[in-house]
Amino acid sequence: MKEMKKKDKKIVPELASGLRDYLPGDMIPRQGMFDIIRKVFERFGFVPLGTPALEIESILTGGDPSFRMNIFKTNVRMGYDKLSLRFDLTVPLARVIAQYQNDIKKPFKRYQVGPVWRAEKPQAGRYREFFQFDADIVGSSSMMADAEIIAIMYATMIALGVENFKVRVNNRKILNGLAEYAGYSSEKNIDVLRIIDKLDKQGWSAVREELMSTTIAEGEERGGPGLSSQEVDSIKGFLDLRGNTQEEILSEVLKLMRSSPSAKEGIEELSEVLRNVRALGVPDDAWMIDLSVARGLGYYTGPVFETTLLDLPEYGSVFSGGRYDDLVERFSNLSVPATGASVGVDRLFAALEKLGRLKKKKSIAQVMVLNFDSSAEQYVQEIAFILRSANIPTEVYLGNEKKLRDQLGFAKTSEVPVVIIAGGDEAEKGIVQVKDMRKGKQETIDKSKILDIINSVLSR
Amino acid sequence: MKEMKKKDKKIVPELASGLRDYLPGDMIPRQGMFDIIRKVFERFGFVPLGTPALEIESILTGGDPSFRMNIFKTNVRMGYDKLSLRFDLTVPLARVIAQYQNDIKKPFKRYQVGPVWRAEKPQAGRYREFFQFDADIVGSSSMMADAEIIAIMYATMIALGVENFKVRVNNRKILNGLAEYAGYSSEKNIDVLRIIDKLDKQGWSAVREELMSTTIAEGEERGGPGLSSQEVDSIKGFLDLRGNTQEEILSEVLKLMRSSPSAKEGIEELSEVLRNVRALGVPDDAWMIDLSVARGLGYYTGPVFETTLLDLPEYGSVFSGGRYDDLVERFSNLSVPATGASVGVDRLFAALEKLGRLKKKKSIAQVMVLNFDSSAEQYVQEIAFILRSANIPTEVYLGNEKKLRDQLGFAKTSEVPVVIIAGGDEAEKGIVQVKDMRKGKQETIDKSKILDIINSVLSR
Repeated sequence: MKEMKKKDKKIVPELASGLRDYLPGDMIPRQGMFDIIRKVFERFGFVPLGTPALEIESILTGGDPSFRMNIFKTNVRMGYDKLSLRFDLTVPLARVIAQYQNDIKKPFKRYQVGPVWRAEKPQAGRYREFFQFDADIVGSSSMMADAEIIAIMYATMIALGVENFKVRVNNRKILNGLAEYAGYSSEKNIDVLRIIDKLDKQGWSAVREELMSTTIAEGEERGGPGLSSQEVDSIKGFLDLRGNTQEEILSEVLKLMRSSPSAKEGIEELSEVLRNVRALGVPDDAWMIDLSVARGLGYYTGPVFETTLLDLPEYGSVFSGGRYDDLVERFSNLSVPATGASVGVDRLFAALEKLGRLKKKKSIAQVMVLNFDSSAEQYVQEIAFILRSANIPTEVYLGNEKKLRDQLGFAKTSEVPVVIIAGGDEAEKGIVQVKDMRKGKQETIDKSKILDIINSVLSR
Repeated sequence: MKEMKKKDKKIVPELASGLRDYLPGDMIPRQGMFDIIRKVFERFGFVPLGTPALEIESILTGGDPSFRMNIFKTNVRMGYDKLSLRFDLTVPLARVIAQYQNDIKKPFKRYQVGPVWRAEKPQAGRYREFFQFDADIVGSSSMMADAEIIAIMYATMIALGVENFKVRVNNRKILNGLAEYAGYSSEKNIDVLRIIDKLDKQGWSAVREELMSTTIAEGEERGGPGLSSQEVDSIKGFLDLRGNTQEEILSEVLKLMRSSPSAKEGIEELSEVLRNVRALGVPDDAWMIDLSVARGLGYYTGPVFETTLLDLPEYGSVFSGGRYDDLVERFSNLSVPATGASVGVDRLFAALEKLGRLKKKKSIAQVMVLNFDSSAEQYVQEIAFILRSANIPTEVYLGNEKKLRDQLGFAKTSEVPVVIIAGGDEAEKGIVQVKDMRKGKQETIDKSKILDIINSVLSR
């Protein structure tokens, strides 16, 4: 009676909003994408790091009362802190660098892939759990490192089969000179940059309005910086700077901002980046210096990077990052310069899908052995064993359909390229029937020939 | 002033107890282990599934008031439920099966790898966040499926280079007949099985004591079942059953328990498993029917599996599972039989390390290009570009050491097999020096020969 009651009340099988499943049809190409990214990162000599999803709350917030990110906190405490879910992979990296400073030799080039969480109000295309795939170089202040990050961004896009993209590069040091150049108080600069960062998605007129406003915009906690129309026009002049070559842009910016030591330093850094990016084989048309790239996160201190898909600009940046020389100092007296970038895996996957760059497939098995005659069960298993021993991914049909025809239908839906038919007759004679599902051809062969035949069918 | 204060107060870089990092020296072989397991699972035709870490609380608990697992709950709600961290990958699989029942064709053979969380008191070797790597066959009631799970357990151990292991197999249906056979009330059986499950770790005398006790043991919520010494002796007789062959054990159990219809069914199932496991090429000495295997989790309904490393029995089972025909019914009126097993990745990794079965290495780069002459920076980057374009993992030295000797020392510590030395002189002449770090040999070569020479040094 109790048993029945329990069985009758069903739990609704669902996910909370902002979360999603990847069924195999999506997961197979997604995993293929991960494999490609990993191979590129390893080609540049990066090594993997693993850190837990749960971090101590103050590690994540830096104990900063103005910390703005919504993080997931759990019911488990450590001291005054709650164990909380990481919102990126960069802060845990900085913790690791400080925590194991004697074990980790620098420069340290690490990659890491894993989920991160943000307890934001779910919106279309914005998820509360999503994957990042990061590559960072820790312990190098050289612009060669920043150039390498740009090269890895380029190489990743090429390896994924994306052709029409642009890596956009700027320098926070140049942006830090913006207040001086446009004439507003430098205290307002952090808000100005945060608003400029929205340019891509909201367009200039919305950004202009917010820069001039003093009221609190939606989703923000503070009022706008209330710039004058003259100040805003100066900013616009800066953002619109273009040139025929990267050198030309840099010399134009230098003209505008030569009074700012910070901007001058930023421009010199980008000149160095430029030379090294070219030496690393990145063609000039794959990237550009774009003064409007600001990046939202507060911890950037030098060059910043974004990657835009030119056919899908509305997807925003799919691979972004920058230099963050002060982050490790949050945890240690060590000053450890660092630079890196992060693939927005889920956004990139959606974009690749839209661009038709994913090799979609439903099945990993190359062969399905049908199983319609209970007297041949062991024979069927033996065939599967032979194929698997030769590293041919093989599935035995294990479902409820008993008829050959229905099992063939299942094999067709699974898109498996080869089917083997082996019932009692075949078992007795030591033969099997091999069906090429793509050509519809079927042949009867001796069991001893099975590997030769299957390999030749698969290579057709 | 404010700035200084902030910088002075450091956040301690640490992890909460029960959590751990994997630095590259561990992460490289760990990733190698994942690659091997994935390849084996794919060889058996399993396809990948991805589900989020966060599930709705009642999905995880099944709304069961006697649910015993401590789960991590977050501060984000959905209705009355809190979003919570999954404690295994099986319950999310059951949810997926119920939720997408029209999209997922059955039988469905999926693998999934990812972290799971348990908010337990941390103990030595017990973690609050750890990885599982699962393979399950959903929608097949055939014992061929259970045999396939045993075959995959065997194949995984072999692929990982483990030789001395035993897959131990039992059937919950046989254990369900235990009450009838030993003469105690069947209501006590769930507690009896839970206690028997501790046999491996606690030994018989502790188990005997707990079976006879009615007081509440440490870590438990209910009192022991209070069996008589006669009942406990019967159980001991059952657990001790052995035979020279699998068939002999099964016929011995049948003699003992022929009065229990459940046990008889369980024995028949294992006979079928036995025939199929052999057909799948698993040698008899790699597995055994072991009547003491109970498995802790409540959802098992048929065959259950464990994998013990014979050289490290104290590590417990490293790959375990069983048949769970009723789990999907928690979410749906569908009855979906299922069976599978889960690699305890972290435990297995620790064991493989102890057994010396891990290929430890610190570096993925095969070549490090030193960088000690700022006039040769672009030349160094160009060399790296040539090597990477040929898929040779290559690192450019980007650290703070300026002296050749110190950079060579870093390369040595990194265990990178080949070092390239290229300063201003080399750049001018279009040559490089190639140093074989394993043999200590160094040669000067023309830049155009670099790929030939490096490949030949690496293949030495």
